[in-house]
Amino acid sequence: MNLKGVLPPISTPFQDGEVALERLRQNFQNWNQTGLSGYLVLGSNGEAVYLNEKEKREMIEVSRESIPASKILMVGSGMESTRETIQFTNQAARIGADCALVVTPSYFKGSMKPEILRDHFVAVAESSKIGILLYNVPQFTGINMEPELVAKLSEHPNIVGMKDSSGNIGQLSEIIHLSRKGFPVFVGSAPVFFPALCVGAAGGILAVANVVPNECVQIFDLFEKRKFDKARELQYQLTPLAKGVTTKHGIGGLKMAMDLAGYFGGDPRPPLKKPGPEVKEELKQLIQHLIEPKDKI
Amino acid sequence: MNLKGVLPPISTPFQDGEVALERLRQNFQNWNQTGLSGYLVLGSNGEAVYLNEKEKREMIEVSRESIPASKILMVGSGMESTRETIQFTNQAARIGADCALVVTPSYFKGSMKPEILRDHFVAVAESSKIGILLYNVPQFTGINMEPELVAKLSEHPNIVGMKDSSGNIGQLSEIIHLSRKGFPVFVGSAPVFFPALCVGAAGGILAVANVVPNECVQIFDLFEKRKFDKARELQYQLTPLAKGVTTKHGIGGLKMAMDLAGYFGGDPRPPLKKPGPEVKEELKQLIQHLIEPKDKI
Amino acid sequence: MNLKGVLPPISTPFQDGEVALERLRQNFQNWNQTGLSGYLVLGSNGEAVYLNEKEKREMIEVSRESIPASKILMVGSGMESTRETIQFTNQAARIGADCALVVTPSYFKGSMKPEILRDHFVAVAESSKIGILLYNVPQFTGINMEPELVAKLSEHPNIVGMKDSSGNIGQLSEIIHLSRKGFPVFVGSAPVFFPALCVGAAGGILAVANVVPNECVQIFDLFEKRKFDKARELQYQLTPLAKGVTTKHGIGGLKMAMDLAGYFGGDPRPPLKKPGPEVKEELKQLIQHLIEPKDKI
Amino acid sequence: MNLKGVLPPISTPFQDGEVALERLRQNFQNWNQTGLSGYLVLGSNGEAVYLNEKEKREMIEVSRESIPASKILMVGSGMESTRETIQFTNQAARIGADCALVVTPSYFKGSMKPEILRDHFVAVAESSKIGILLYNVPQFTGINMEPELVAKLSEHPNIVGMKDSSGNIGQLSEIIHLSRKGFPVFVGSAPVFFPALCVGAAGGILAVANVVPNECVQIFDLFEKRKFDKARELQYQLTPLAKGVTTKHGIGGLKMAMDLAGYFGGDPRPPLKKPGPEVKEELKQLIQHLIEPKDKI
Repeated sequence: MNLKGVLPPISTPFQDGEVALERLRQNFQNWNQTGLSGYLVLGSNGEAVYLNEKEKREMIEVSRESIPASKILMVGSGMESTRETIQFTNQAARIGADCALVVTPSYFKGSMKPEILRDHFVAVAESSKIGILLYNVPQFTGINMEPELVAKLSEHPNIVGMKDSSGNIGQLSEIIHLSRKGFPVFVGSAPVFFPALCVGAAGGILAVANVVPNECVQIFDLFEKRKFDKARELQYQLTPLAKGVTTKHGIGGLKMAMDLAGYFGGDPRPPLKKPGPEVKEELKQLIQHLIEPKDKI
Repeated sequence: MNLKGVLPPISTPFQDGEVALERLRQNFQNWNQTGLSGYLVLGSNGEAVYLNEKEKREMIEVSRESIPASKILMVGSGMESTRETIQFTNQAARIGADCALVVTPSYFKGSMKPEILRDHFVAVAESSKIGILLYNVPQFTGINMEPELVAKLSEHPNIVGMKDSSGNIGQLSEIIHLSRKGFPVFVGSAPVFFPALCVGAAGGILAVANVVPNECVQIFDLFEKRKFDKARELQYQLTPLAKGVTTKHGIGGLKMAMDLAGYFGGDPRPPLKKPGPEVKEELKQLIQHLIEPKDKI
Repeated sequence: MNLKGVLPPISTPFQDGEVALERLRQNFQNWNQTGLSGYLVLGSNGEAVYLNEKEKREMIEVSRESIPASKILMVGSGMESTRETIQFTNQAARIGADCALVVTPSYFKGSMKPEILRDHFVAVAESSKIGILLYNVPQFTGINMEPELVAKLSEHPNIVGMKDSSGNIGQLSEIIHLSRKGFPVFVGSAPVFFPALCVGAAGGILAVANVVPNECVQIFDLFEKRKFDKARELQYQLTPLAKGVTTKHGIGGLKMAMDLAGYFGGDPRPPLKKPGPEVKEELKQLIQHLIEPKDKI
Repeated sequence: MNLKGVLPPISTPFQDGEVALERLRQNFQNWNQTGLSGYLVLGSNGEAVYLNEKEKREMIEVSRESIPASKILMVGSGMESTRETIQFTNQAARIGADCALVVTPSYFKGSMKPEILRDHFVAVAESSKIGILLYNVPQFTGINMEPELVAKLSEHPNIVGMKDSSGNIGQLSEIIHLSRKGFPVFVGSAPVFFPALCVGAAGGILAVANVVPNECVQIFDLFEKRKFDKARELQYQLTPLAKGVTTKHGIGGLKMAMDLAGYFGGDPRPPLKKPGPEVKEELKQLIQHLIEPKDKI
């Protein structure tokens, strides 16, 4: 397992309110044609918080069937309690996940001191049958993992990487510098994908890669070939769409953009909603604008 | 059902990591001797986020058996998705809950606009077999319900009250003023229990009432009898302990204080921990200091 | 000097961009007819940050001439550096100020630790020829004074009171409880004037008292006479206007409301602006709504 | 005037509490030997908020005398009011400043809407005899300039650049992409100097360049020569010192580090203080660690 490159945190398709597994298979058929390194199943963008246990299991099973061995199957397995996190991580392992992404517990924000987080991640790492990645996403959790804590945890043999969605490049830079050499850190915020690569990120786990996987992979490839100016130029073109499907229009916007780009997006689960027709037009133009000029780069 | 007075958001007892239902029964036997108006089961302080479905069901069942008809059984039933919230609220209703406390969904903070929250609460209220109370707790959710939104929702016949744990008395005051006349609003922050009553709160749902129910009820009774100076004086004495079992030492501190006050507290579930011996001494003194002088008031 | 009751942080009148001292005298003639306990000159609402040294001096001089000995003349004298604060406080003393309000220095937020603030206030208190009041206004400064710090400073013989504009009633309550007995604390946020009195505040320094001094004084008087229900009712009526002239429409809104209520408001200094005509209509209705029904209370 | 490269926001030297102009001349003699592109006088790190008008004027005069024509003299000239900002900017112009850095006014945070900021900057630009640069420093002001606003202002012929100290690389990237082609944007946060250059920044205005100008210039030069790996490596070595003299130990730490590196630092003005001896040891090691290995790069 080579932890690098671009992975989408895949969207969970619903039809008539239920998980639509056939639609998921279709999406994988298309995504598998691209240069994506793998997939994150049951991430934030997969609306994992809206799925029950059975639905989560089925999502992993169908993903396992659909993803070739050459690509990574990463599963979001973090829960609030340490024991449920361990149970669910090992369930994902049994179904065939390659690794698990474990978010910081966060409900009791004031109590989530560095030692509490450290003990939680060490306990999960010790008991997990697959490698785990730390997941820092302050905009959802209200909790931030300090670089010093990540650095310590990076020494654990079963903690195999990290996803940092803070969007804070200074912090990402420090995390990479302080952690053990070679510890792969993925950035989780597409508008800073290019600068994250500049400071040493291993790749990106990017919502917008559900919609335009080729363009995201192209930024990574241009960077690897040291064509920095072209990578930066493509980043500039990607940013408006990347913001459109996350901070600006949320999960509803992401699913709408997927529908526009030839994938199955569908509706999010309530209370989330799809945005209105004016957003559809906006997203349409952003996608077209992005796909057209890329040949020139 | 008379929605007023003091309710503790009851602590969930664990022994050897499992829910200890006998310990819960014991706690109820003691609490039932006091002037508490009722109980909130599966609230934040009940570590609801650490319980699985079966454990939650059992907590409600044993609470139903232990609580006399003269006291309120309120159940925390809010989930992230609208449909799970409805399902669980009605499950609580079937087991015999008198009403349900529904927290704002909050995972996708940026998307939780007022209309989204309104539609969520209206959908739950429409489908619930028992009355629901709105629950605003920004320090855990990162979401705040604006007074204007609460005011609109207060008109719905199946939205029967609110718990506001923001600690913001200006906002509480506006909520009470703008909502329909008689809409009961509970404050969820013990350090401002007395000023909340001053601006018209119906009562308090207070973590510290797990530990010193009589003293909390006494503040309410003194206020009702218009003995404001005595109520304020007792508030001043309650505040240090109230902060000790919430913002300062969290759930672990709350459970330690319960043990010290003759209830069963026990350990929280990891990643939470009990604080060290120096905190024990601190809490012990706060409890003694509070219980001793109360006769003079 | 009896530090209690209602003081407006007086607005600074400008005409053609210059300080209009005659307009100030007129305003004082009207305000002096009311039950206001005194005045704060050169506060935040006085646009002190937009005045040069000469203008500040003239504002104090004309205020001294216009204010009878029976009312308090408090001057805002806090600067970023300790030495300039001392110099300006003593200049205000020489012109005849009764006491000075000293805001927390705040430009270097990260460095303003409790010990730094303590040493600053002690140094000013030691060198000042008049008593000083501490001023905590986190929404402008980004700095909050913790109750423990205030409590220690309240013991200094030349620190004679405090203004807390945080709007946080829990904190205000703790400040009053922890400080030396009788230490007068003014609340600086009109929407929580009534609950602040309930927890023991000595009075209010309220922007809206520039506009409707009588109504603000009436809340204070009703409270003193223990007519709590009437005081609360009047608070409810005051709150919308109080928010209109501060958080909602800022200094421009305050000055517009003064014009509507028969005082001279005029324009703020750029970059501030007066709001548009739709705000004028809103403020007009809020003032009328407030003045009309007060006889019934 | 070629707005690029590294500029220190120069420290203001004090001796016995007074501005020590001879010490300033000495510092310039040393700094002038380096590859610094110029200097920012009266910036945040120059403790401008602690200087009176006369002191400010003298600081500019001595800087003008000490700085060769080949290097930029930029002066921090932003005040809270529009008219004082214009007056002081033109005073700086008369003394010979090449350009002025104008911070967002910020005291009335809630009122500083984008249109208010736009009108302020346009008014200053229209009336200023020298080109102005926009200055965004949310950690001091509590105000952030949105990329869309900067983009519009970048079209004004007398707005010649920007300094962004937010440390937010995503935002910096958007600012550069949306602004007019060639609009020079300086980053004001040394820990992200390298990634800022990657996304197109023209240079850095860096507190740490008071202490180790050569190392800061070296990062810029390595980047210009497209030696990205070496530039990134030197950035990693610079970051701990850069944080030590800003977020961690403030102005006192900066001045202590200057003393250790052979410049005159001296004491900050109260309420600021110099840190204790343990910080001295820490800074000493950081400086040595940084200067030693640089030859290898």
